[in-house]
Amino acid sequence: MTDVNNMHTCDKPLVGVVMGSSSDWEVMKNAVQVLRDFNVPYEAQVVSAHRMPDEMFAYATVAKDRGIQVIIAGAGGAAHLPGMLAAKTTLPVMGVPVPSKYLRGEDSLLSIVQMPKGIPVHTFAIGEAGAANAALAAVSVLALSDKALSQKLEAFRVAQSQVARDMELPPLR
Amino acid sequence: MTDVNNMHTCDKPLVGVVMGSSSDWEVMKNAVQVLRDFNVPYEAQVVSAHRMPDEMFAYATVAKDRGIQVIIAGAGGAAHLPGMLAAKTTLPVMGVPVPSKYLRGEDSLLSIVQMPKGIPVHTFAIGEAGAANAALAAVSVLALSDKALSQKLEAFRVAQSQVARDMELPPLR
Amino acid sequence: MTDVNNMHTCDKPLVGVVMGSSSDWEVMKNAVQVLRDFNVPYEAQVVSAHRMPDEMFAYATVAKDRGIQVIIAGAGGAAHLPGMLAAKTTLPVMGVPVPSKYLRGEDSLLSIVQMPKGIPVHTFAIGEAGAANAALAAVSVLALSDKALSQKLEAFRVAQSQVARDMELPPLR
Amino acid sequence: MTDVNNMHTCDKPLVGVVMGSSSDWEVMKNAVQVLRDFNVPYEAQVVSAHRMPDEMFAYATVAKDRGIQVIIAGAGGAAHLPGMLAAKTTLPVMGVPVPSKYLRGEDSLLSIVQMPKGIPVHTFAIGEAGAANAALAAVSVLALSDKALSQKLEAFRVAQSQVARDMELPPLR
Amino acid sequence: MTDVNNMHTCDKPLVGVVMGSSSDWEVMKNAVQVLRDFNVPYEAQVVSAHRMPDEMFAYATVAKDRGIQVIIAGAGGAAHLPGMLAAKTTLPVMGVPVPSKYLRGEDSLLSIVQMPKGIPVHTFAIGEAGAANAALAAVSVLALSDKALSQKLEAFRVAQSQVARDMELPPLR
Amino acid sequence: MTDVNNMHTCDKPLVGVVMGSSSDWEVMKNAVQVLRDFNVPYEAQVVSAHRMPDEMFAYATVAKDRGIQVIIAGAGGAAHLPGMLAAKTTLPVMGVPVPSKYLRGEDSLLSIVQMPKGIPVHTFAIGEAGAANAALAAVSVLALSDKALSQKLEAFRVAQSQVARDMELPPLR
Amino acid sequence: MTDVNNMHTCDKPLVGVVMGSSSDWEVMKNAVQVLRDFNVPYEAQVVSAHRMPDEMFAYATVAKDRGIQVIIAGAGGAAHLPGMLAAKTTLPVMGVPVPSKYLRGEDSLLSIVQMPKGIPVHTFAIGEAGAANAALAAVSVLALSDKALSQKLEAFRVAQSQVARDMELPPLR
Amino acid sequence: MTDVNNMHTCDKPLVGVVMGSSSDWEVMKNAVQVLRDFNVPYEAQVVSAHRMPDEMFAYATVAKDRGIQVIIAGAGGAAHLPGMLAAKTTLPVMGVPVPSKYLRGEDSLLSIVQMPKGIPVHTFAIGEAGAANAALAAVSVLALSDKALSQKLEAFRVAQSQVARDMELPPLR
Repeated sequence: MTDVNNMHTCDKPLVGVVMGSSSDWEVMKNAVQVLRDFNVPYEAQVVSAHRMPDEMFAYATVAKDRGIQVIIAGAGGAAHLPGMLAAKTTLPVMGVPVPSKYLRGEDSLLSIVQMPKGIPVHTFAIGEAGAANAALAAVSVLALSDKALSQKLEAFRVAQSQVARDMELPPLR
Repeated sequence: MTDVNNMHTCDKPLVGVVMGSSSDWEVMKNAVQVLRDFNVPYEAQVVSAHRMPDEMFAYATVAKDRGIQVIIAGAGGAAHLPGMLAAKTTLPVMGVPVPSKYLRGEDSLLSIVQMPKGIPVHTFAIGEAGAANAALAAVSVLALSDKALSQKLEAFRVAQSQVARDMELPPLR
Repeated sequence: MTDVNNMHTCDKPLVGVVMGSSSDWEVMKNAVQVLRDFNVPYEAQVVSAHRMPDEMFAYATVAKDRGIQVIIAGAGGAAHLPGMLAAKTTLPVMGVPVPSKYLRGEDSLLSIVQMPKGIPVHTFAIGEAGAANAALAAVSVLALSDKALSQKLEAFRVAQSQVARDMELPPLR
Repeated sequence: MTDVNNMHTCDKPLVGVVMGSSSDWEVMKNAVQVLRDFNVPYEAQVVSAHRMPDEMFAYATVAKDRGIQVIIAGAGGAAHLPGMLAAKTTLPVMGVPVPSKYLRGEDSLLSIVQMPKGIPVHTFAIGEAGAANAALAAVSVLALSDKALSQKLEAFRVAQSQVARDMELPPLR
Repeated sequence: MTDVNNMHTCDKPLVGVVMGSSSDWEVMKNAVQVLRDFNVPYEAQVVSAHRMPDEMFAYATVAKDRGIQVIIAGAGGAAHLPGMLAAKTTLPVMGVPVPSKYLRGEDSLLSIVQMPKGIPVHTFAIGEAGAANAALAAVSVLALSDKALSQKLEAFRVAQSQVARDMELPPLR
Repeated sequence: MTDVNNMHTCDKPLVGVVMGSSSDWEVMKNAVQVLRDFNVPYEAQVVSAHRMPDEMFAYATVAKDRGIQVIIAGAGGAAHLPGMLAAKTTLPVMGVPVPSKYLRGEDSLLSIVQMPKGIPVHTFAIGEAGAANAALAAVSVLALSDKALSQKLEAFRVAQSQVARDMELPPLR
Repeated sequence: MTDVNNMHTCDKPLVGVVMGSSSDWEVMKNAVQVLRDFNVPYEAQVVSAHRMPDEMFAYATVAKDRGIQVIIAGAGGAAHLPGMLAAKTTLPVMGVPVPSKYLRGEDSLLSIVQMPKGIPVHTFAIGEAGAANAALAAVSVLALSDKALSQKLEAFRVAQSQVARDMELPPLR
Repeated sequence: MTDVNNMHTCDKPLVGVVMGSSSDWEVMKNAVQVLRDFNVPYEAQVVSAHRMPDEMFAYATVAKDRGIQVIIAGAGGAAHLPGMLAAKTTLPVMGVPVPSKYLRGEDSLLSIVQMPKGIPVHTFAIGEAGAANAALAAVSVLALSDKALSQKLEAFRVAQSQVARDMELPPLR
């Protein structure tokens, strides 16, 4: 992936990361960081279901033809972005519940995960962990047909286990 | 309103009632009944946000030009229909949370009411009461510029009060 | 609308904004700001359901004759203000759940939205977004018979979309 | 207390039992039964906060002068009855959350118990147990200045304990 | 009431305020403040259901004979204090759900309000408002047989209404 | 264990199973069944925290001296029984949240598990599974100093695994 | 896929469907039905995280080498199966929250979706819809490298839309 | 217990304290502190269910043979550690729900307490109180066969009661 000027775009993105507002970035950047760590070509941008509905539909409609293989969508509150993208594409759509100000993401989670039969959204945990995991899930999907990526994912897991294994507990005071 | 053959449509509907599935009818018919009682021209149909996204957008896009003044939308679970219609029209959109099988509409309610700043959905109670009230709310909006309807609404309230006043409690056994 | 001295009142208000306490202002001012932005004549004041019940009833009783077309009511906790106003007027009443100290507005939301069949309250999201959206909903209702306002609302939406479209994501670090 | 014809009224009621609808009777009759068991003069009737707001206010306003000492109010959903009565009287108001169809009384409970500082509602459990306990609470309040009633209450407790003490567990099969 | 040295005790307390820990004081002092404002003789102390169970039972057992007429009990989490006091006395027991660290008093509320049929606890809102209201409820109970106190309570309400009436909203900026 | 006449008592019970009402038996019998299956001497009876507070305290006070090693307590709603027993004994107390009519045991669970620092209650799942597991937990505690029982527990686990292993899925139709 | 004797197994399964108990079948068969409809080679069996932990780990460990590409795991209550499988494989794991008896799957949902950073589980709706959608998600993942399957998925969507489009609402009575 | 260099290990630990991450230490150290106060030999370390699944199984498998008598396990979010340890050992496993960032431990609690029939986890309160209580519960279990420890526990309770008894309430201002 070319990474000139730290732009969130590239020639042939495989993963499209979208979010309802730039205020979701603090959470969603955890997805982007994972994709970068795995060197997965991605693009990231604001696509608002409620304020840019036509662009949102257009995004989902052409995603597959543009070569996108997985979409990661983050949204908060009445979070319609992941489900509406899923309604317009057969690509796997990963949904990230962004924490809301008062209900702390419980609304976002239910708005994303409780999709009706027929249109699935792969849903992950509320907040930062969910964003990172949505990207790891995208990696695991891409790795099914990319042996090198699969090996990187295995290595990531091994390293992650080692970090846990090396954790030490401080003394009591 | 012509009511030939009990069809849920008419020449010049002022209120459009839509729902995500025919399984929502048991709840949403309470809205239709109110509109009929007030003789408000309406249409009612299934418009699924997730399975008919393009028709849904088309519905919202042309509603105003077709003379629709209020949209009533019922949906359950990850209920995206009211919010997505609202994203595509500046008409008032009334949202009815249809009870879901396991979470009993708590998911539907949050998916509808927690809309982000900029795109409002007028939300009502979960289930039958909410459906009827969404229609009464539509009536109250239409009544702002329709004196006869306004008087009907006042009369409805008077009658409704009398029903409550006339309620009797049975003996203890 | 005359706006002398920044007073929350005017000669012929079309929208009445009321709240249970001046402590609700931080939330409810988001409704007032929207009304100002649209130049909709409004008035705003404290009307407590529990501490000023008679004034509250009086407010609702004469609102219509005073030319008020929409009432926006914000309250928190056991939030009875919107529903009790609705019981005393056939005007559309928009309810805003103000976040409560410990339950974060979950109590406010349920106290407002779960109205029984017959007396609707148009309910919006908890907090600032809900307050702004209640005002936008009032605008959409007024716009049904005010072409200029309708055009302003359309323009607002176009501008709002552009803001979303222009949002950029910062670099990762 | 005269109990001619099993009417829910008497010459000098000390406790007023009110509820929002006759559909609340199945729950609220548990309060009435307790009052009868203790031979406390009572009256019971439908007083709807939303459909009979003026009668509700009138009820609360004159209750004290009519000799009522405690009000028991049951309501479901956006349950405003107990709190609005409390806003209009300084008599103790006991609130009973009647279970709602979909949220099972969680909304009723929060709408009743979360009253703002200044206007208390004595709240009891959701449903039948809460209705009976509201009446027992009324008895305990009246018993403060009625020695005979106080003794009856003590006797009730003794008998109740004995019932528990006498409970036997069936064999395993 | 003698108030020498600001002690939370007096010769002939009518209201006993108890709480599970001194950490509940920040909430429960709102009850004490109300009792002082009404000049109701009271006592306040820590009585822990879980750490001082025998003293708790003793407190409830002799309260009536000591002249106590109302008990106000505050507790958080698995809040057993109000219900266990109520099990040991026929005096009215007012329960105040003290907010818990993680669940914010939802656990406290349910542990207090959901009492089984037969043993009522008068329950009030979570936190400061609930503490103040429990004391106002105690005042309203005592006022049933104390004309002067009743008049004070009426006056308090009048003054409270005036405070609300006098509330002004700041300008928008 | 002598099992004459299917009585829920024996000479030297090691486990005391108590519940607030005979209506809890349908749930709590699952605990008793496990104890029987393991041939652990037990007794089972109704001990109500709210209706038999003195007997409850007496039960907890002498349990240890009577040779009881573990107490299993089931209760619903504002479930105070397990926590109050724990306040009066240093024996391990296992708490079983019995499902409540309207809140389905969510209140029972929080009332039991959210004990304050210093007085633990070992809490298990809501309902039948929790009752059985409380008994299995009692067995695991007793097994620490009873090799035969420990072996029985290991064997139970082996058999239980085999049951799972032998489960077959029916054909699709 | 060979489908001799309606067995839930085949020579070269691409999707492994596992569940904690045969009692989960009523929900999980909705996943199996989708896989059959798409003619995706699958296997289905009971693998209990808690009762067959070693078999569960073994299942996850060898799944990839056996040619499995996606695992679908359903579990209820403290639902650990999907997350523990995900801990032992880098294959995509789809989690289905099976409704629990008292909490209706809210516990299952949170136990599955709230995975920590590093180990993702793709989570779907509670119950039947979630099971079907997990399978559709598996299809969408497999379709990324299987053009025929991708076309089938597109066709499924088209047909599904038509079903919604053809839905008719019954007359009001 | 030797306590050289403040290490969280010793020759013959009776209690094993494990947690999913070193970030759980702030909560779990409350368990360790209690064990130290009672001079119970313990060990404490990070054992992650999701990142160190094999070590976790190994830990549980050999715990009994190593002389461990009770395991205390803390975890947050989709908290699988306590339940999976319990699946691999017949020792008593105490589960501590560590508060999660957005849902404040409600997810942790349900993931730990709602175990299926057959595999119990002794569950305690969310957070610090629960960690301390899990350790006290371990002490109470060990005390069944250790008279000295039993006396220490009794003494701890007596002292704890005295602390509560000595609590004083500050003056009102």
